[in-house]
Amino acid sequence: MEAATSLSGATRGLTQADRFRVTRRQSEALAAPLSDADATIQSMPDASPAKWHLAHTSWFFETFLLRDHLEGYSRYDERWPYLFNSYYEAEGARHARAARGMLSRPSLDEVLAWRAHVDEAMASLLDRPELEPLIELGIQHEQQHQELLLTDIKHALWSNPLGPGYAAAPPITSPAPAAAMEWHRHPGGIMRAGHDASGFAFDNEGPAHRALLEPFALADRLVSNRDWSEFIADGGYSNAVLWLSDGWSWVQREGIDSPLYWQGDKHFTLSGWQDLDPDAPVTHISYYEADAFATWAGLRLPTEFEWEAIAQGKDASAGNQLDGAGAVHPIGSESLFGDCWQWTRSAYLPYPRFRPAAGAVGEYNGKFMSGQFVLKGASCATPRGHSRATYRNFFYPHQRWQFTGLRLAKDL
Amino acid sequence: MEAATSLSGATRGLTQADRFRVTRRQSEALAAPLSDADATIQSMPDASPAKWHLAHTSWFFETFLLRDHLEGYSRYDERWPYLFNSYYEAEGARHARAARGMLSRPSLDEVLAWRAHVDEAMASLLDRPELEPLIELGIQHEQQHQELLLTDIKHALWSNPLGPGYAAAPPITSPAPAAAMEWHRHPGGIMRAGHDASGFAFDNEGPAHRALLEPFALADRLVSNRDWSEFIADGGYSNAVLWLSDGWSWVQREGIDSPLYWQGDKHFTLSGWQDLDPDAPVTHISYYEADAFATWAGLRLPTEFEWEAIAQGKDASAGNQLDGAGAVHPIGSESLFGDCWQWTRSAYLPYPRFRPAAGAVGEYNGKFMSGQFVLKGASCATPRGHSRATYRNFFYPHQRWQFTGLRLAKDL
Amino acid sequence: MEAATSLSGATRGLTQADRFRVTRRQSEALAAPLSDADATIQSMPDASPAKWHLAHTSWFFETFLLRDHLEGYSRYDERWPYLFNSYYEAEGARHARAARGMLSRPSLDEVLAWRAHVDEAMASLLDRPELEPLIELGIQHEQQHQELLLTDIKHALWSNPLGPGYAAAPPITSPAPAAAMEWHRHPGGIMRAGHDASGFAFDNEGPAHRALLEPFALADRLVSNRDWSEFIADGGYSNAVLWLSDGWSWVQREGIDSPLYWQGDKHFTLSGWQDLDPDAPVTHISYYEADAFATWAGLRLPTEFEWEAIAQGKDASAGNQLDGAGAVHPIGSESLFGDCWQWTRSAYLPYPRFRPAAGAVGEYNGKFMSGQFVLKGASCATPRGHSRATYRNFFYPHQRWQFTGLRLAKDL
Amino acid sequence: MEAATSLSGATRGLTQADRFRVTRRQSEALAAPLSDADATIQSMPDASPAKWHLAHTSWFFETFLLRDHLEGYSRYDERWPYLFNSYYEAEGARHARAARGMLSRPSLDEVLAWRAHVDEAMASLLDRPELEPLIELGIQHEQQHQELLLTDIKHALWSNPLGPGYAAAPPITSPAPAAAMEWHRHPGGIMRAGHDASGFAFDNEGPAHRALLEPFALADRLVSNRDWSEFIADGGYSNAVLWLSDGWSWVQREGIDSPLYWQGDKHFTLSGWQDLDPDAPVTHISYYEADAFATWAGLRLPTEFEWEAIAQGKDASAGNQLDGAGAVHPIGSESLFGDCWQWTRSAYLPYPRFRPAAGAVGEYNGKFMSGQFVLKGASCATPRGHSRATYRNFFYPHQRWQFTGLRLAKDL
Repeated sequence: MEAATSLSGATRGLTQADRFRVTRRQSEALAAPLSDADATIQSMPDASPAKWHLAHTSWFFETFLLRDHLEGYSRYDERWPYLFNSYYEAEGARHARAARGMLSRPSLDEVLAWRAHVDEAMASLLDRPELEPLIELGIQHEQQHQELLLTDIKHALWSNPLGPGYAAAPPITSPAPAAAMEWHRHPGGIMRAGHDASGFAFDNEGPAHRALLEPFALADRLVSNRDWSEFIADGGYSNAVLWLSDGWSWVQREGIDSPLYWQGDKHFTLSGWQDLDPDAPVTHISYYEADAFATWAGLRLPTEFEWEAIAQGKDASAGNQLDGAGAVHPIGSESLFGDCWQWTRSAYLPYPRFRPAAGAVGEYNGKFMSGQFVLKGASCATPRGHSRATYRNFFYPHQRWQFTGLRLAKDL
Repeated sequence: MEAATSLSGATRGLTQADRFRVTRRQSEALAAPLSDADATIQSMPDASPAKWHLAHTSWFFETFLLRDHLEGYSRYDERWPYLFNSYYEAEGARHARAARGMLSRPSLDEVLAWRAHVDEAMASLLDRPELEPLIELGIQHEQQHQELLLTDIKHALWSNPLGPGYAAAPPITSPAPAAAMEWHRHPGGIMRAGHDASGFAFDNEGPAHRALLEPFALADRLVSNRDWSEFIADGGYSNAVLWLSDGWSWVQREGIDSPLYWQGDKHFTLSGWQDLDPDAPVTHISYYEADAFATWAGLRLPTEFEWEAIAQGKDASAGNQLDGAGAVHPIGSESLFGDCWQWTRSAYLPYPRFRPAAGAVGEYNGKFMSGQFVLKGASCATPRGHSRATYRNFFYPHQRWQFTGLRLAKDL
Repeated sequence: MEAATSLSGATRGLTQADRFRVTRRQSEALAAPLSDADATIQSMPDASPAKWHLAHTSWFFETFLLRDHLEGYSRYDERWPYLFNSYYEAEGARHARAARGMLSRPSLDEVLAWRAHVDEAMASLLDRPELEPLIELGIQHEQQHQELLLTDIKHALWSNPLGPGYAAAPPITSPAPAAAMEWHRHPGGIMRAGHDASGFAFDNEGPAHRALLEPFALADRLVSNRDWSEFIADGGYSNAVLWLSDGWSWVQREGIDSPLYWQGDKHFTLSGWQDLDPDAPVTHISYYEADAFATWAGLRLPTEFEWEAIAQGKDASAGNQLDGAGAVHPIGSESLFGDCWQWTRSAYLPYPRFRPAAGAVGEYNGKFMSGQFVLKGASCATPRGHSRATYRNFFYPHQRWQFTGLRLAKDL
Repeated sequence: MEAATSLSGATRGLTQADRFRVTRRQSEALAAPLSDADATIQSMPDASPAKWHLAHTSWFFETFLLRDHLEGYSRYDERWPYLFNSYYEAEGARHARAARGMLSRPSLDEVLAWRAHVDEAMASLLDRPELEPLIELGIQHEQQHQELLLTDIKHALWSNPLGPGYAAAPPITSPAPAAAMEWHRHPGGIMRAGHDASGFAFDNEGPAHRALLEPFALADRLVSNRDWSEFIADGGYSNAVLWLSDGWSWVQREGIDSPLYWQGDKHFTLSGWQDLDPDAPVTHISYYEADAFATWAGLRLPTEFEWEAIAQGKDASAGNQLDGAGAVHPIGSESLFGDCWQWTRSAYLPYPRFRPAAGAVGEYNGKFMSGQFVLKGASCATPRGHSRATYRNFFYPHQRWQFTGLRLAKDL
């Protein structure tokens, strides 16, 4: 990834208890370069303060594990659930999302102390088999927030005219030029899509079901910054015909003329302002931009199932880059996972026979099933071990502060 | 339908030239009850003035037929295309949509004179076979605007505290109570979906393609006002857990607590304020409301393909009600078409291998493929002969000023 | 004025009953060039439809005269007061101001019929001496709305890309160039300001009181379009230092770079688009612009008392131009009244010992005493006989759709 | 004041150099209870982060003293003027006001280091007589920001649902009930108003000039919380007739039903949530509220000159409370200065012959002269020695996060 602290790598093979501890430490390590003030500010309603992420993930364990399953546990602070519930209606009223940046108290240190307290209390639950699914959900949830912590702090630091870096810049590498685009071809047919319940998955990845594909091809590499520069040079941002109607309104209203974080031939990274690497995958683009690019190129975005069909059998753990190398890697021939999330043309909707889980955790995914698109893969900010072919990330078509890019497809 | 002028019925069996003339006269008949001022006002950016619909449909013929294909034709007024182009970027700059209500000039009479002029000029094109597809598109386009004219004027008249009716109230009927819900069962499998190019269809209805269905059932009747009242009485609008997240935000922000146009046990109709008929289908609900109702009922919305599979082979012309009877009919056992548009849980996205047509008319449908949901069927305001099983209507999930309702589905 | 129908001139010397009738006819004559649709539309929340002005002034007589003082009178339509009360809280709830353009019903003809009904009923009150003050208020109130009707319809017609004229263009005159600016000098001292209760005045013009002036001079002519062009050419709209802070924000936010209605060397008038006359007074400027211009010129705006001191003893009826000549007159040496309202640097605040009248009519003026500035004089759209030295017009500093201009002042 | 750190008292009798140093230390002392995060957040666009106040006041000295007058001085950090210029157009582009809360860097410690650097550099300028006026302006400017720092941090802490206190609660006192209101009577006549140039004053306080008063009386005490509770109990917030039109719109739009910071019988203070003291002056009210209260009481607000006439000759230093006593004092018979700023009915406009200073410091006051009202006196948060009878504070009529209250007046 662009720039991150060096963390211990994959967590495969560890016990759940160990993975709980490793994950909790990783979150704190990600916050280590931040001051109390850095960790407090909120640069837009879509983003949350780093401190809030640290607290919210602890609220999750305190609420759904300790409160519900540890006899005699009492809240660390009775007033904090109101602050750190994200969106669970079943858990009652909560602090307005857009006002999360007002929480200078509790301080970063106080939140860290709470984390320690929660972790200690959690110790006695880590060996209770019946809680394994819920603990796993908490771990996976925290990993998701690790990625958000990084993308949110990137946005916050970019909002400062000083453009401070989150971490030191990585050593300069001399990347090989992105190769010409080759194609993974697929003959179509009925595939098995979605998660089959062996190993952890979020509820929205299932149930596994049949999906029907027509013959298609998927590009073997991501669209690069160089590709994108050609789109710009060809007037891509001023040619209405390339755009979805909502996309064109967005371009006009917001004055969009490049990916987020681009400024001339520089872009803002977790290491501050850096030269754009033409051979790195383009990132921080909206669905509207991805779709307009594909139209310009005479191609299209893949569906989520097309992407998944190609990804089946590939190792999702290979690509992730939470290793401190510190830069978006030049495009290799395989980059399904680990460089950036890839927009698909599939709306984020329930799979056949999908049912949300009972209770508050049922609000985790299902209630967001309108107006958003599915992204596949994983980004440089996704924790190792958190990727898989069935993963369904989702964002609104105008959002682009995540590490979002695109991989083209075509009909055969 | 609620209240409409008596129009000649189905246009099947007529020549295209006759259908052109009938359609043009129908539009004018729909505007007949309106004053110049009624036809000028715009009650919200989503809606357009009645006069604008009359003018825009003429602009369509003048631009894509007369200008492009009638030698020596010159514009009736060179300044009007700027006013009456809706959204065709390829046709240049245009008047802001939200300001359509500022056009007190040209007057209704001037627009009608323009229509007569266009119709006269069109006469010499009506027998040119190579123009048949474009003329057909113009006719179908005008039929769509006939429905919009009715829904838009309904909204405009409702915005007036006097609540004036568009047409006289129909005689009171004594409806039979809506029957218990029965189910159309379907075994699943691969179906043929979309339009196969025999007869007219919009580009978004094709290409015809295979779709895979799991076993399901579709209700044999629409949800009624009585059903909806039970949802309200059970606290449906104040129970967050039933709602999509965006839907709940919408409910809270807009203070929604009933379908649009409901006020106590009255609702606003094209005949002004009338008693709610508990046995009539509920109309004027958003996707969010339809989805929340289905969740409350322990059921779900159908996909567009499920709906289409059941509809295949049924007569789409039977139900339409542009006959002046003047009321939403009580629910019969078959009401797939003609009472209200039915929300599906399918996002409005391109079918496999979909390509928009070349040129400006390619902007007709394709560029709206983000953020909207598909509705199937047809409403009481849909012109006769304009319905078919492959028809894909689409609106944003919060919109409800169309005659929108729902039909439930379930897994088998 | 720019373009108006020819109306009978001054009403001085007439009985009140005659003036009532003349005034009512004048309002209708002003609406004569308008279609039902023209009279219905509302181009911004600050403006009202012409039809609404015709109705509101009738509501005033129906409410405060007929309802309150004519035994047995019953409302022409019980539902209309809700529509046509402007802002009188004591008269109950009312239609939202920004939605006045939704009232396609009642039609213009229906409103005119109401006017005839009210006028007939008023006949029996016109000779009751105790009602004279209230009837006078109604007449003066209607005259104010005559000016608003003209400025509002000007804005509405300008909002139409066709730029239709309200009336025919006047014959072209060959104006003499605006003379060099000369000065009315005043030695300062204690003056008598405000209205002394002989003859009609609005409550906000009194009580008469002492005001202290320092020595000053007031320009003998208005600032001309030529003067304003020099301000523009000198970068007046892009030099932040010339502007009040709120004014500069307004300029930046709204993209202001000329008076309202200017477009190149043309400006929109009641006769449609016309060449700018460099010797005519500049009109349609905001307080912010007037203040910035004065700063640029090294001068200042007068206070309301300075203006009034110079105006005392001058004939306020001379200048008004509701005579059909049809153009803003070239600047003569005396133009205190009749060309445009002149911004003063006085905030619109109560005079010493000011008390609003009891009852609903007490809401006429007093409740607007925050955030606005006083304008003195009268414009080309002000009815004859409606001007006087003590008159206090008032608008917010950003508003400029009235015929607003400026006259400079300086310290001696 | 409500709660403040104990600071050394009056600075009268000190040299300017000493006062410079004392003032600079006071600012830092005010920030002492704050964490880096507390000092970084911005709770609304009107307010600024505490850190920003510390930095901006240093920018003022660095820019107008060190840069302009200390040979060889180079900016501590060339990038910071962009961040910490408030509104001086002549000093170039600057960071958006509403985004001041994004500046987690520079940190509070870095800002404090900058302050030390500036102070050290300033040492060599403190004995240059020709710079005395500019240094004095810098000191007074910093004192103004001390008050803003306190009111802004109060608002920020209140925005946190935890309601943290800025300082410890003061010991509970047993106040004497507010006495019945007595009146300072004044016979009217010509007074000398404004500052006469002996001793420091801001430019907007002059020139001294004559002002004409009619006989009036000014209340000898402020309106108390008990008085205000009676206004509420009598339906003051729901009776439209009491309110200015803009005020009533504000009440309706914002849902106002009590002073800012009131919640039941508690109010939020710099010591957190405390019981309301009925005998303390009401604070945190808008001009609209003050005016409505006065109307309800059958009285009025004073003009700025009436207030000043009564205040002339009184000791402005007596009342200020920056002494750590920690509570708004019960009302004594004399509280012209030191409890709260008192709204007048005078718009904030230039005095006769007022001219802003040349250069950037000329933007200090003059460009805000539209739309605001003058407040007189001084509050519990005003630094000792910063008060005088000619002082003109100014805010928009809806603003109330300052310590604003009211003192009634009446005509004689």
